[in-house]
Amino acid sequence: MYVCSANVVKVDRHYDKSSSALAVEALAPVVEACGEPDALVVSTYLSRYQESFGNLGALLAEYLGFKGEVYEVSAGEASGGAAVALAYKLVRSGLKRVLVVGVDKTNDFQSKKAVKHLQTLLSPYESFYGLTYAGAHALAASLYMKEFNVSREELAHWAVVMHDNATAVPHAQLRFPVTVEKVLNSNSVAEPLKLLDSHPFSDGAAAVMLTSETSPVALEVAAASSKLTLAERDLTFMESAKAAMEALGNPEPEAVEVHDPFSVAGVIALESLGLAPRGKGIKYLLENAHSVNPSGGLKARGHPVGATGVYQVAEGFLAITSGLGKLGKVSSFLAHSSNLMGATTYLTYMREV
Amino acid sequence: MYVCSANVVKVDRHYDKSSSALAVEALAPVVEACGEPDALVVSTYLSRYQESFGNLGALLAEYLGFKGEVYEVSAGEASGGAAVALAYKLVRSGLKRVLVVGVDKTNDFQSKKAVKHLQTLLSPYESFYGLTYAGAHALAASLYMKEFNVSREELAHWAVVMHDNATAVPHAQLRFPVTVEKVLNSNSVAEPLKLLDSHPFSDGAAAVMLTSETSPVALEVAAASSKLTLAERDLTFMESAKAAMEALGNPEPEAVEVHDPFSVAGVIALESLGLAPRGKGIKYLLENAHSVNPSGGLKARGHPVGATGVYQVAEGFLAITSGLGKLGKVSSFLAHSSNLMGATTYLTYMREV
Repeated sequence: MYVCSANVVKVDRHYDKSSSALAVEALAPVVEACGEPDALVVSTYLSRYQESFGNLGALLAEYLGFKGEVYEVSAGEASGGAAVALAYKLVRSGLKRVLVVGVDKTNDFQSKKAVKHLQTLLSPYESFYGLTYAGAHALAASLYMKEFNVSREELAHWAVVMHDNATAVPHAQLRFPVTVEKVLNSNSVAEPLKLLDSHPFSDGAAAVMLTSETSPVALEVAAASSKLTLAERDLTFMESAKAAMEALGNPEPEAVEVHDPFSVAGVIALESLGLAPRGKGIKYLLENAHSVNPSGGLKARGHPVGATGVYQVAEGFLAITSGLGKLGKVSSFLAHSSNLMGATTYLTYMREV
Repeated sequence: MYVCSANVVKVDRHYDKSSSALAVEALAPVVEACGEPDALVVSTYLSRYQESFGNLGALLAEYLGFKGEVYEVSAGEASGGAAVALAYKLVRSGLKRVLVVGVDKTNDFQSKKAVKHLQTLLSPYESFYGLTYAGAHALAASLYMKEFNVSREELAHWAVVMHDNATAVPHAQLRFPVTVEKVLNSNSVAEPLKLLDSHPFSDGAAAVMLTSETSPVALEVAAASSKLTLAERDLTFMESAKAAMEALGNPEPEAVEVHDPFSVAGVIALESLGLAPRGKGIKYLLENAHSVNPSGGLKARGHPVGATGVYQVAEGFLAITSGLGKLGKVSSFLAHSSNLMGATTYLTYMREV
């Protein structure tokens, strides 16, 4: 199985474009490069809450003049990864070319509203009692720092490295450097997490075409699930990430994009994937600064929720075919798409053919 | 490819149960009968609008104690059919057992709110100018009656037959007979369509397990898309239904469940599938009253939106293995899952092995 082509729209505040317009902008060059697909897989999560419209797969098929099979997929924040995994299965089942497009917008409302929409990711019982999406990550950060004796200053390095990587990536949203001091002095989002530990509100769309025809980038996928309810799991480790990585045969990628809506999630992801020892995620990051989230990650490239996982795979394609930001060209790449801190995980492993 | 087992919850007003509770009720006996699946496919459409929660796939995996691959799928009203089509592809790609569960509730709010949620199915430009879901079907009914010289009385026979079929089906929602006169004298929903031409607001869940292991019911699937925007298509014919039927090799099923949220949609579906000549859908229905929508169809069995397509496949399984309502036992069955009058279509053809 192969990736034929990929394309990303700059992650930004696209006040002047609808979700469908962004999606078409992302997918058109991919169809141009690879030809018409046999199936269309659309990934979105927030668009239903934001646009009073819920039939995006059918609308994009119309815009594309496409008459084949259409599937609209979601898996919370990991919707993009789920869509790529599903497209992979569609090609495995006998189709020649499957187009994946992921899209979401979070800036069409005040951030207060977007925060409420992100709360729809949480287990209903925990959400009902007032837990928020940022609050969930703050609990994980507190526990992680205590359990592994990691200081608040050390954790801030995640943001410093992500912003630095993003400065070299044209499609990233936050292309400015930050310092540890600046992170620690930014507004509090949910103690101990600060604004600069957090992903921005992002609008974006990305597209990739998977194909059974030989192409410069081969891929494998794996997926696993754990529990959604936070009270039922160890917040410092993502079982589903470990299980999916084992299903892939524990590859050793040259570079990785991990799901880091908040600094702590990225650190725990590196450890759950087995790339860094437990408690040593930040140390691993500092030793591999350009190969961990070369795009800047959700933290600095941005997090257009339902599109994020497709961005990661598109970035892997870019890194292998022509280089990505400060990373340059690599021959293998792992994309880690995670739904609410590992409730479900979808991995895509790509390598140069 | 085979259906191992299927189960349905009675379509009703389940004020005391959440979507996830209904889904677990539907899927538990299927997992009991077939064993743990390799992947879980969850189909839902309205639950996101109704429950301030959007991560149902992950939650159901937790309730099921399931750690494998999870995919949440939607395709508007045809979400259930899309989920079955996708599960089919997952088995084709190499998995042994894939569990599909469809669920939705429409009664947790006043019907006015449910009507607004159904409007999210429409192309945004048409919805913006005030077209409603019922209004779209009313336009189709007016055009159909004019073009094929079909009277309002003739069209009312659809409801009469559906209600009659439902009286013999324990899981149907509207288990009472109606007459042509009663249909014509019921409240107007959107002229020329009356309340008794329309599906009820329904809560429900259904589950089926697809498998590569030989089982008494074999299945094939096909899917196609057309356009979402009504202004861009012939409202009296569904191109995507015709294309999907051709992809199946135009089978001649002994019985069929067609997608009939309003009487006119069912009539046009029969004609678009090639089962009845154009303009002769009602005639065909009257000649085959027990083999067209033996469950009572969306009209009388009910239409729990994201679950409806899974109900149809479960009903096919029931009809082939033990008989369904007035139909009795058959050896072949077609399930027609349609999204906004054929914007997308997903067909499942089942036969006795």
